[in-house]
Amino acid sequence: MNTPREHRTPENSLILITTAMGVGMHLGAWRYRTGEASDYLDLEFYKHIARSAERGVLHGLFLADTLALSEENLERPNLGALDPIVVLSALASVTDRLGLVATSSTTFNEPFNLARRFSALDHLSGGRAGFNVVTTFVPDVAANFGASDLPQHDNRYARAEEAMDVITALWHSWGQDALIGDKTSGVFADREQVRPINHAGQHFSVRGPLTLPRTRQGRPVVFQAGASETGRQLAARTADAVFTVQNTRSAASEFRADLRRRAEGFGRHPDSVKVLPGLVPVIGRTREEARARKLALDELSADAELRKLALRVGVPVDALDLDKPLPVDLIRANPSFNASHGFRDAVVRLAVEENLTVREVLYRNGGGHAQVVGTPDDVADLIIDWYRNGAVDGFNLMIDVLPDGLDDFVDLVVPRLQDHGVFRTSYQGTTFRDDLGLSPVLQTVS
Amino acid sequence: MNTPREHRTPENSLILITTAMGVGMHLGAWRYRTGEASDYLDLEFYKHIARSAERGVLHGLFLADTLALSEENLERPNLGALDPIVVLSALASVTDRLGLVATSSTTFNEPFNLARRFSALDHLSGGRAGFNVVTTFVPDVAANFGASDLPQHDNRYARAEEAMDVITALWHSWGQDALIGDKTSGVFADREQVRPINHAGQHFSVRGPLTLPRTRQGRPVVFQAGASETGRQLAARTADAVFTVQNTRSAASEFRADLRRRAEGFGRHPDSVKVLPGLVPVIGRTREEARARKLALDELSADAELRKLALRVGVPVDALDLDKPLPVDLIRANPSFNASHGFRDAVVRLAVEENLTVREVLYRNGGGHAQVVGTPDDVADLIIDWYRNGAVDGFNLMIDVLPDGLDDFVDLVVPRLQDHGVFRTSYQGTTFRDDLGLSPVLQTVS
Repeated sequence: MNTPREHRTPENSLILITTAMGVGMHLGAWRYRTGEASDYLDLEFYKHIARSAERGVLHGLFLADTLALSEENLERPNLGALDPIVVLSALASVTDRLGLVATSSTTFNEPFNLARRFSALDHLSGGRAGFNVVTTFVPDVAANFGASDLPQHDNRYARAEEAMDVITALWHSWGQDALIGDKTSGVFADREQVRPINHAGQHFSVRGPLTLPRTRQGRPVVFQAGASETGRQLAARTADAVFTVQNTRSAASEFRADLRRRAEGFGRHPDSVKVLPGLVPVIGRTREEARARKLALDELSADAELRKLALRVGVPVDALDLDKPLPVDLIRANPSFNASHGFRDAVVRLAVEENLTVREVLYRNGGGHAQVVGTPDDVADLIIDWYRNGAVDGFNLMIDVLPDGLDDFVDLVVPRLQDHGVFRTSYQGTTFRDDLGLSPVLQTVS
Repeated sequence: MNTPREHRTPENSLILITTAMGVGMHLGAWRYRTGEASDYLDLEFYKHIARSAERGVLHGLFLADTLALSEENLERPNLGALDPIVVLSALASVTDRLGLVATSSTTFNEPFNLARRFSALDHLSGGRAGFNVVTTFVPDVAANFGASDLPQHDNRYARAEEAMDVITALWHSWGQDALIGDKTSGVFADREQVRPINHAGQHFSVRGPLTLPRTRQGRPVVFQAGASETGRQLAARTADAVFTVQNTRSAASEFRADLRRRAEGFGRHPDSVKVLPGLVPVIGRTREEARARKLALDELSADAELRKLALRVGVPVDALDLDKPLPVDLIRANPSFNASHGFRDAVVRLAVEENLTVREVLYRNGGGHAQVVGTPDDVADLIIDWYRNGAVDGFNLMIDVLPDGLDDFVDLVVPRLQDHGVFRTSYQGTTFRDDLGLSPVLQTVS
């Protein structure tokens, strides 16, 4: 059974990961910022973000993955347009300690390729790779992969679960000390420690072993974001960390408690699954400055935020009236809903609990995720409040405008979190897994 | 119709690409060199190679891809063990002009993923990506991808051909000026220039468009290495450059002439396909030093080179006797041969033309490719001779021991090639495509 590492106190173990979505999470970001619209294709843009994150001692940089170009993607830089494994591999060369978390779909990639690709990033980065496992809920994607329709929700998860079994077995197909490399005797590997996995299942048949030895951190850190019943079960069984959409502290607390219970049900220590809700900080030196920033961003994105909300909750955009309550009954009555349950449930809960209009919903959640529009103290206060009350292990920061919103967070919010003793001042251990406070991977031959 | 670029004279247009295979092409490299056996997993090792290549004004760095671990891979660092797209993405950050050529298999990857992944590397590197298209001939691979057997040779090529049609169409699915990015008006893209490809074929059904705009060089440079009839046809129709196995100048001349004729048959200018045989230089300051280096390497790899040769020609290892002629009749009589025709044909031709024993074959070809064991002048002389006689457009250097063999080539051979006026002293144009002397990609909307 796992136990927390000694070098970490519960006090300063807050986890902070930042996401780079397009040129910022806000749909108006590309028009608001000073750089070029094409910066989302430019390595220098990503280098700036990675270096800022490392300056702020953030745990990791997370990138999404988009496998289709929809109509909205022609209105602004497409979130996840670039293959994230390519971007994060490029950043491995210019960072030393930052965790590098790439999203990939188990629905549209072969598990052998996924296992090898993430192992390669883990080797080259010296044990800093993370794999955010998704099953892909965007219907347009299927048409790029020869399928007329996406597999249904439960089928996607059954495939994902089996894929993770295959991938994990491949990552462990070389024992801890299998690479000997004795140049004098000429013994390169201990054959007894390198074994085929001989997986033959419902969706996959994979012999193995992997082409690569075990990595410094044992295997890449596994992230997930499923909120449905099957998604939570998969996360509780196989994930080291979970991205989630939570708009209230109470909802976050319930989610975390539920996931920790489920993890225990699978024989895992509850601390072995870190829960990280998304958070959109919109920062100003004063509240007025923050509100002005938000307003300017909103004006530059017209009704784009509204259409995004409609997509997230699965209703036509004209079913949403800015000054009326969110049509919760209509949303709940959709029998063919096949998108992310996490986004939908979080926004419905927020609207119901606080009886919000559509306009208020848009103000309080940044395209789905919790949002704070305020001063560095306002942002720090929310983080500290949720963290100290056990609602979260940390946050996944969805920065409104990149890179300056991240620089503001690093320069203005991080020092406050450090002053309050909830956030560390230096990286911990030698790998991403260490740094997240996760226990070492069991070091026996599989 | 394409025409050569003005900035390039035929005199100094020799193309040089270097390959990083494991820690060197020679099977004894890992025991011979000074570094650790695990260096093939270390980013610093690849950074050294990339920087040396750029110091030598080499056109590109090429990496192979190995999708299975065979028994021999436990005897030394596995060539192509790391996913090459990961390694080359990491190197994009630390190089400025070097072309980055990654191998990927169209048999075991979806064309949409391939198109997007290589486009991403092309964007981040500023137009320096190359895609070496392979169909995968190693039977062990199939077992890692749910298939009990590899598709037969012609089926693999039919799939590859259709995959390249899909990938090329996706690369061109955004017109040259589709990304507008006008922050004032809010017009991000010209919708008229972004079109689905709506491909519906024998092997693939892909709607598109790609998630990414066109890259600076129009699309990644396409490499191929097929030597069979179907392989040559695919290369002549779709490749910008061809890696090939040629052990004699006359064979190289014939191959190049054949490929240029075929390209013309597809309506292409013959200069639009560059022919690059592999070359293994084993360099010493004197011939004695070079021979001693080769001998030491051979002694450190025992009979590994012999087993590799047996695999390449498709006969059991005990059918090869070091002091007897290569059993050409037995090799030719194998009806179930399903590996690389290029390697087999090249070695058979060398053995027949010069009536070589197996031992002599091993000395003259480095695991398949042409080999020079000698002084920097010996290496330069062969390169100049083949190049000036029109047998090649350049070479793919298969360095015996990395990184020192590459440093020797860069420091000792490159200056001689420059002195003779066959090799340039600086990078040309702004992209990999420019630098190779290839014509710009046609800039119309597809």
